[in-house]
Amino acid sequence: MKVLVLGAAAGGGFPQWNSNAAACRRARAGDAGAQSRTQVGLAVSADGERWVLLNASPDLRRQIELTPCLHPHTDLRSSPIAAVVLTGSDVDVIAGLLNLRERQPLRIYAAKKVLDILDANPIFEVLARDVVRRDSIPLNSPVALTDAGGACLGLTVELFSVPGKIPLYLEDAHGAPAIVSDENTVGAMLSDGERRFFFIPGCAEMPPELAQRLRGAELVFFDGTLWRDDEMIRAGLGLKTGRRMGHMSVSGDGGTLRAFADLEVERKVLLHINNSNPILLNDSAERREVERAGWEVAADGMEIAW
Amino acid sequence: MKVLVLGAAAGGGFPQWNSNAAACRRARAGDAGAQSRTQVGLAVSADGERWVLLNASPDLRRQIELTPCLHPHTDLRSSPIAAVVLTGSDVDVIAGLLNLRERQPLRIYAAKKVLDILDANPIFEVLARDVVRRDSIPLNSPVALTDAGGACLGLTVELFSVPGKIPLYLEDAHGAPAIVSDENTVGAMLSDGERRFFFIPGCAEMPPELAQRLRGAELVFFDGTLWRDDEMIRAGLGLKTGRRMGHMSVSGDGGTLRAFADLEVERKVLLHINNSNPILLNDSAERREVERAGWEVAADGMEIAW
Repeated sequence: MKVLVLGAAAGGGFPQWNSNAAACRRARAGDAGAQSRTQVGLAVSADGERWVLLNASPDLRRQIELTPCLHPHTDLRSSPIAAVVLTGSDVDVIAGLLNLRERQPLRIYAAKKVLDILDANPIFEVLARDVVRRDSIPLNSPVALTDAGGACLGLTVELFSVPGKIPLYLEDAHGAPAIVSDENTVGAMLSDGERRFFFIPGCAEMPPELAQRLRGAELVFFDGTLWRDDEMIRAGLGLKTGRRMGHMSVSGDGGTLRAFADLEVERKVLLHINNSNPILLNDSAERREVERAGWEVAADGMEIAW
Repeated sequence: MKVLVLGAAAGGGFPQWNSNAAACRRARAGDAGAQSRTQVGLAVSADGERWVLLNASPDLRRQIELTPCLHPHTDLRSSPIAAVVLTGSDVDVIAGLLNLRERQPLRIYAAKKVLDILDANPIFEVLARDVVRRDSIPLNSPVALTDAGGACLGLTVELFSVPGKIPLYLEDAHGAPAIVSDENTVGAMLSDGERRFFFIPGCAEMPPELAQRLRGAELVFFDGTLWRDDEMIRAGLGLKTGRRMGHMSVSGDGGTLRAFADLEVERKVLLHINNSNPILLNDSAERREVERAGWEVAADGMEIAW
């Protein structure tokens, strides 16, 4: 199984279009210690030829162009991208689907609530339903992924709910949405029959059943949005805590480092990293701290094959 | 007035994600004669500090990063982008709005039918209405553009209908949509009080009233989607003619070169160029032909100041 990190940043990317904070300025200046990152997406393949995308960020067109194995190389019109699995319906998860138009056969897999949201936005009809099939998959049940023609891709996915919230654009003006475990935010476990890994780009807390699921895993990509819960507020960048946005922080008592400390996960990778999170900077104390705790910080172009 | 071409390609860009045609292969290989282009967008400024975007393509995040004058340079969170004018509601015109989230004040101007389509897609609510105002503007009437706070930007826009069709994703399965002149496809005339230019990225034919409007103009950016109407079919790339997609061709009897031959436009620039159009290639006979006819072929990064 081969896994490519197409993008490692949280919504908005790094640098974020309207952020003039020091880290974003460093990234724009091409500082090697502040590597730019596009918004989260992985590509996964069992055979190195046919690929499944995990999430479709607004940066997907650029991500494809930077990734030769995702370029067409057979017919005049073709793509090695056979399917897309979606773990939510926030803009940074689904907007990139709009780049996959042009009547290219494709299969979209997601929980029913996520597909309901696609259905409620007519713009996604640009992926014509006679060539792009939308498949709702139940939680907690492995599903064998196929391409639009039904050919097996050699991978199964199992979706499971994690604590999260509804997408920002569906929030109403009155108060914070509840943090709940339902189909709106899910994690995914991918397997090629021998190996398996977890992809959890958004997670608001670590309940015991999730800890149990992850215990002893070979590889986990996990929500690295914020270093501390009030990071945006302290930096003058926003009014919301991480929890208000549906993300647990990396540091602190209820944070990710502590939550994983005893889970004996072999390889742990932080992704969905917000531009305000100092772990993005190669030379930060926070980067050293996560590395000392046995974590890697994902960057665009990272490849894991095993 | 300063005009920047952020992107010059038609929907899908050049190269297009699923096209393995020779020109797209050349662009991917970095061939200097086949320069990559992102999807159409212009940035316009009267003062060189505050900018108005004409259309918001899916490539907008990348376009902003490549354009230093669009980077934030005042507060921690800010943007020189004060407003966006939309000339239609196809994916390549509106999807980039999703990149302008993060509660950054902004004003969106468009014909009412276009705003109705945004309203019908809840995903665009990510641009919170309390900070991003949506203004419907009447056709054939100049409107002074302001930022979200009401400060004048020194530019007026006048929208006018041109022959076109409804967006692809609103077509039903039965037959081709009619080519009509209504609010679904408009051209825009921008003026700083002294100079003016036209932006018409999609146009299915040149009726006498449009020819009259453009006669003697200083600068026109015009639909350069296809070289010939059946180009996609002949190349084996698709089943649709240019007209079926709502675009007149550059060459031929009913084509753009002929339609402009007697209009005495001072500077004529083709943009919204499809990846199948040979004028994209610096070394093509078709490129020489449009240049002999007095046209320029837009490329990303092109600047016009006057």
